[in-house]
Amino acid sequence: MRILNTQMLAITGLLSLGITGVRNIHAAEKLNPSKPNFIIILADDMGYGDVGIFGHPTIKTPNLDRMASEGQKWTNFYVAAPVCTPSRAGLLTGRLPVRTGMCSEKRRVLFPDSKGGLPENEMTIASALKTTGYATACIGKWHLGHLPQYAPNAHGFDYYFGIPYSNDMDATSLKPNRLESILNPRPEYFIVPLMRNSEIIERPADQTTITKRYTLEAIKFIKQNKQMPFFLYLAHSMPHVPLFRSREFENKSLRGVYGDVIEELDWSVGEILKSLKENGLDENTLVVFTSDNGPWLVFQDQGGSAGLLSGGKGGTWEGGMREPTIMHWTGKLKPGVVMDIATTMDLLPTFASLAHVILPNDRIYDGYDISPVLFGTGKDPREVVYYYRDTQVYAIRKGDYKAHFITQPEYGSEIATIQDPPLLFNLNIDPSEKHNVADQFPKVIAEMEKILEKHRAGIMTVENQLEK
Amino acid sequence: MRILNTQMLAITGLLSLGITGVRNIHAAEKLNPSKPNFIIILADDMGYGDVGIFGHPTIKTPNLDRMASEGQKWTNFYVAAPVCTPSRAGLLTGRLPVRTGMCSEKRRVLFPDSKGGLPENEMTIASALKTTGYATACIGKWHLGHLPQYAPNAHGFDYYFGIPYSNDMDATSLKPNRLESILNPRPEYFIVPLMRNSEIIERPADQTTITKRYTLEAIKFIKQNKQMPFFLYLAHSMPHVPLFRSREFENKSLRGVYGDVIEELDWSVGEILKSLKENGLDENTLVVFTSDNGPWLVFQDQGGSAGLLSGGKGGTWEGGMREPTIMHWTGKLKPGVVMDIATTMDLLPTFASLAHVILPNDRIYDGYDISPVLFGTGKDPREVVYYYRDTQVYAIRKGDYKAHFITQPEYGSEIATIQDPPLLFNLNIDPSEKHNVADQFPKVIAEMEKILEKHRAGIMTVENQLEK
Repeated sequence: MRILNTQMLAITGLLSLGITGVRNIHAAEKLNPSKPNFIIILADDMGYGDVGIFGHPTIKTPNLDRMASEGQKWTNFYVAAPVCTPSRAGLLTGRLPVRTGMCSEKRRVLFPDSKGGLPENEMTIASALKTTGYATACIGKWHLGHLPQYAPNAHGFDYYFGIPYSNDMDATSLKPNRLESILNPRPEYFIVPLMRNSEIIERPADQTTITKRYTLEAIKFIKQNKQMPFFLYLAHSMPHVPLFRSREFENKSLRGVYGDVIEELDWSVGEILKSLKENGLDENTLVVFTSDNGPWLVFQDQGGSAGLLSGGKGGTWEGGMREPTIMHWTGKLKPGVVMDIATTMDLLPTFASLAHVILPNDRIYDGYDISPVLFGTGKDPREVVYYYRDTQVYAIRKGDYKAHFITQPEYGSEIATIQDPPLLFNLNIDPSEKHNVADQFPKVIAEMEKILEKHRAGIMTVENQLEK
Repeated sequence: MRILNTQMLAITGLLSLGITGVRNIHAAEKLNPSKPNFIIILADDMGYGDVGIFGHPTIKTPNLDRMASEGQKWTNFYVAAPVCTPSRAGLLTGRLPVRTGMCSEKRRVLFPDSKGGLPENEMTIASALKTTGYATACIGKWHLGHLPQYAPNAHGFDYYFGIPYSNDMDATSLKPNRLESILNPRPEYFIVPLMRNSEIIERPADQTTITKRYTLEAIKFIKQNKQMPFFLYLAHSMPHVPLFRSREFENKSLRGVYGDVIEELDWSVGEILKSLKENGLDENTLVVFTSDNGPWLVFQDQGGSAGLLSGGKGGTWEGGMREPTIMHWTGKLKPGVVMDIATTMDLLPTFASLAHVILPNDRIYDGYDISPVLFGTGKDPREVVYYYRDTQVYAIRKGDYKAHFITQPEYGSEIATIQDPPLLFNLNIDPSEKHNVADQFPKVIAEMEKILEKHRAGIMTVENQLEK
């Protein structure tokens, strides 16, 4: 209650001041330091190794590199799932996709013919922050249900500009075979709609300019809302295949078209950070950059790289679910490399904590408030990561160790191998998961098995949204 | 001749000023900007992926990371050979080891019973810089011949402090089997001598304190020579197995003992850079950090990581010969990520150019002056890299492409596979060498074959120093 009173006081104070300009924004921060802005910049299928500062030799990412050296580079940061729809559901709700019905073996993600989506009673970061007066926008790819009741506007976003699902969907009959249409794409091969709120404004979306347009929309939103706290979810549709980039980025990178695409995303990050600075918001805005899952390796040179990690998109080896993550907040974060274990599901409770939003206690959250790590005041509370492939736990990380109970190739094989005894890797010593140490640590295996059993017992059956 | 006159004038000027202090050093720089100091910090068996800024998730290297963000991170920087002795011969002479007799199939490096070494008529960076008045020191591992005529003092170094060959040599009968003695080492298992100039001052060298002692010796040399130009070759004996680190670094890294060792090396780099700053020398000193070859993968967790590159020490895949390289020179370098192709053999001609030393024209050099890249004034002159395994070219890189003519596992197999047609990779697009594109570029293959033929024709037979 005390917190709410302070917020009311601050809002009253702002209104009575008739605040309009940048200087007064700083006054607003002083009056109300409890409402920072939040920006999540999410790449699509970008690998752990696709950023300069994460080790790529030929992709130039000066903006991401600077963002990391000014802020925090997170090297043990995970997503909730190794594919798009469940990963995004986990990020926005702070809950494992298995709790929201947003994962399935049969259809791993939502498709244009799907009838399901993120249930209306699920709370997203946007709907949580709206309760305390945030302006909210989703710019980019949604992929949590394209029917109106599942769309961004139904989930706490004031504004939506983007595509409703993946950029390789809605393939037309104009195209050659699927692989050819992806590797040598034209926008008209994929009649994906571009939407503004509930309206289709362009179809097919001109994907060659889409990264640029998302960026300009994001900057417009930042400017329009500089006088009030905001949450911007900028979910780029690149570098998911088919790859497109603006003319200015064509053949710019040594890494080919994939590198061009990443370099345009890097440009976009630079523009966002520049806009924050120009609008006097950089000291009051936490920016998080990450990706929704690992690189789509089957597309070879047009897919990304997981760096020294094994595997990629779709699988539960590290490359599928560990993401190149950078956090930035001028003057607030303790700069450096952070090796604590965290996940995208931690963003909801962290933002709620920073914005003093009390989350409803009628549901289970799988995220933790990581703000002590942001400010260097304490340890990360997270100990365990569950590696779900669709509705099943394939692996568990606790501290240094990861146990694989089931393994399966990312794509191209339906065969799952039950690992009994489980494979065990020390991820801090052996991040590439090369040297199975199960023989040496039977107690760790036993502990992992208990964790798995307990976790499974806590999962309730819910309606499967992806098979509707 | 003009240059030499300028140098003479500068020296005369200094002498007549009777210069002693730091302030006067700055005056000296103004008088003689043509004599910067040079420091090479060479790691032993450190992999491309073992530095934070090159992508390692759990090794903390804040000093190397900062060195790179202030200076240049080179992502396409190679060594002359994938094992120790020939790599170091290439670095110090600017010539391929096949020209100096410093490579061999039978004995890939020098051993304590070897009778050969770097021939007396070879010129090293040290002997070249001595001709123009540099103070020179070799601190660390030499491995270019331990007999007096081949030792550092015979090759232009005023001062030597270090071990004459690898730290796993001179194994005693005290030890258990070789693998066990390496993985659970004690200093007394390896009676490697520690030398000061031609004198053995400790045997076995206490390797637990060796990184620290090399560092203190290096700082002492810097301080002692702050009034004159100097060249310091700081060739750490770590992280070559057996791994040792100071007590302060025990269990410090999440990456285990290997991480501890790298974090101590990172500390060492930080101390060197701090010393330069404290002595007013940072704006007049080019510091190059690199490694002698890729990670020794057979030692699993006690070997390093080549990051996203394939292969490791001993082989001609990228991981064997591409090194994490950083250059630093406060206020002089154009900061950023450099993707130009260069090698350790380029250091001799570059240093010579910067110090206005005219190299003798009685021999073939395999290095190029890369100073235009350092200062951002021009392109790197190098187009071709030869990947030698011992005395044979196994692969060639020209520009984007690398052709493998022969492949062979790094260690553990004597079987070399002749690749006919050669394998071809576009290293900028596919740095992990996963997707052979030979079929698509027959002209590139044909060009590579011509380059190989021409190169081979230019190699003269010389006495093999490693089989003596």
